[in-house]
Amino acid sequence: MSDYYSQEFHGPYETFELGDFPLENGARIRGLKLAYATFGTLSPEKDNAILFPSWYSGTSKILEQAYIGAGRALDPGKYFIILVNQIGNGLSSSPHNTPPPFNAARFPALAVADDVRAQYRLVTEKFGLEQLQLVLGGSMGAQQTYQWAVQYPNFVRRAAPIAGLARTTPHNRLLVSTFIEAITSDPAFDGGWYERAQSVHRGLRRHARAFVAAGLTPAFFNQEAWRDSGFSSLEDFIIAFAENHFLPQDPNNLVLLASKWRDADVSRASQGVLAEALARIKAKTFVIAIQDDGFFPLEDIAAEQALVPNSELKIIPSIWGHLALFGLDQGFNKAIDAILAELLAVA
Amino acid sequence: MSDYYSQEFHGPYETFELGDFPLENGARIRGLKLAYATFGTLSPEKDNAILFPSWYSGTSKILEQAYIGAGRALDPGKYFIILVNQIGNGLSSSPHNTPPPFNAARFPALAVADDVRAQYRLVTEKFGLEQLQLVLGGSMGAQQTYQWAVQYPNFVRRAAPIAGLARTTPHNRLLVSTFIEAITSDPAFDGGWYERAQSVHRGLRRHARAFVAAGLTPAFFNQEAWRDSGFSSLEDFIIAFAENHFLPQDPNNLVLLASKWRDADVSRASQGVLAEALARIKAKTFVIAIQDDGFFPLEDIAAEQALVPNSELKIIPSIWGHLALFGLDQGFNKAIDAILAELLAVA
Repeated sequence: MSDYYSQEFHGPYETFELGDFPLENGARIRGLKLAYATFGTLSPEKDNAILFPSWYSGTSKILEQAYIGAGRALDPGKYFIILVNQIGNGLSSSPHNTPPPFNAARFPALAVADDVRAQYRLVTEKFGLEQLQLVLGGSMGAQQTYQWAVQYPNFVRRAAPIAGLARTTPHNRLLVSTFIEAITSDPAFDGGWYERAQSVHRGLRRHARAFVAAGLTPAFFNQEAWRDSGFSSLEDFIIAFAENHFLPQDPNNLVLLASKWRDADVSRASQGVLAEALARIKAKTFVIAIQDDGFFPLEDIAAEQALVPNSELKIIPSIWGHLALFGLDQGFNKAIDAILAELLAVA
Repeated sequence: MSDYYSQEFHGPYETFELGDFPLENGARIRGLKLAYATFGTLSPEKDNAILFPSWYSGTSKILEQAYIGAGRALDPGKYFIILVNQIGNGLSSSPHNTPPPFNAARFPALAVADDVRAQYRLVTEKFGLEQLQLVLGGSMGAQQTYQWAVQYPNFVRRAAPIAGLARTTPHNRLLVSTFIEAITSDPAFDGGWYERAQSVHRGLRRHARAFVAAGLTPAFFNQEAWRDSGFSSLEDFIIAFAENHFLPQDPNNLVLLASKWRDADVSRASQGVLAEALARIKAKTFVIAIQDDGFFPLEDIAAEQALVPNSELKIIPSIWGHLALFGLDQGFNKAIDAILAELLAVA
């Protein structure tokens, strides 16, 4: 197991054991573990819980660093905040940490709905919750947020999908497919049977470059906004920020997550009728878009928001584009806090 | 030599021999050949000539099919139109058709300014021109158009750079680099020393997918606009339209062209001062942008247009995005004709 996914770098986190866990597609994960971290104290009435699932290539740690804190909207002094790691992200059960024969390339593909079902067991069985005050998430976390609100409409009081979609568009599917291919086309990937994750570094580096080419705005590059974060050149930024982010990660983990992203679709249980699926949502929902998001264009996010009954569209500009989610744009951080605080104040 | 680049598929075209041709970077192309096709008749006063250089992965044939015709703005009944093939595009001197030892991976890198200098010799030595009524081009052809107007300001009476930039932005450089890597990372590419171009088909297919992911608008995919062109599914479209376009091409040719694209910069002769370079332009210039161009964002095109003295910005919407240049959107074709006709009518 890679040190990258250790308590040292991503902890402290705890683990919830779900035993053998059947998936939507008929496969089964043996001994499923969900890794999570909590902040704040659950009220005696259990009416202050917030759930925040992780995103692609991220863990609960980046959510903690970028969104949680005294004086922030997600204030542990007021709320009991559960940061949960998606299946496959390296902290929860994943290709790289599952014992043979179900490891690596044999780890089963899964759907967003499987994660949400597992998370439902976490919050009900472990914490005895009957309602979540808010479910929120960015990017792939927005997919999980939508799925929560559709799958458990009475459980989710408020929802904030940020910079993500309930159903992946054909364009986004294609884009994510090119990310996957950047990794799997590396001969060292060997169909997922590499001996050392690090030997796939060329594929991971290519993936990182394609990722930031779409994830940041053209204006970010034009204005050399990477200078604000102390990088010496664009190449220095790409290596130190983008390649460095993906290099220590397990290629099978990333491919599994990206496949889940590509295939995300809340309408699967509604015969593919998106309007019908989104109409089930009872949560007060703020659909939050980043203005020039190269992954999830504003018009696609707005089109889904129009189908969510009790919702509002909130738009945040950021030169960081999609990657504003990482929390390096203080303007974005202030804006997202204001929006989340407004949502949490809704009775 | 591949049949793809033959007279059968891309002719009729003629060839202009330039002998040994020194490049800006100190290298030299031995026995440079420029392939070109002409339409219409040069007037006795030689005052009706138009030059239209090719773009990335295209030849004079697609320009002919998409832009030339009776009743079109580029009407051979009125104008003498020269479609010239960029060096490296497979019809003019290129890695794949140059004899050893200067072939394949040893074909020298070159700059847009080298093409323009060679084309200047074509139009002056072969046709005895002293002025061009119009230079126009799309994408990499826009790079050549800008370079023409900067390098030979008295020679170019009107200019129409379409969906392209005078200087490649950092974001565009990164994007084009990922296209190059999609090809060069294929083990079959072998540093450019493959025996058969077709053995690099995996890299070419990857390149094709990354290319259309950025080249078409998200709306194109959402609305399944590929149906209008008779494709049965998105995958059918990607294979039949995108992969089919690149598969028969020579990988070294594409890498050479893409490198020229990546490094394009009209300001090289002005100590990198873009405003100074563009201020040299004397042509009446219509800078034409495609509304949602995933390669060349409108704001980047507008920023350059603001630096061109006698210019106007024209914006054409198309669901095809950058690839509207291919001529499959009749609305785009009508719009571009109207704009070019207006420009040609300027005294």
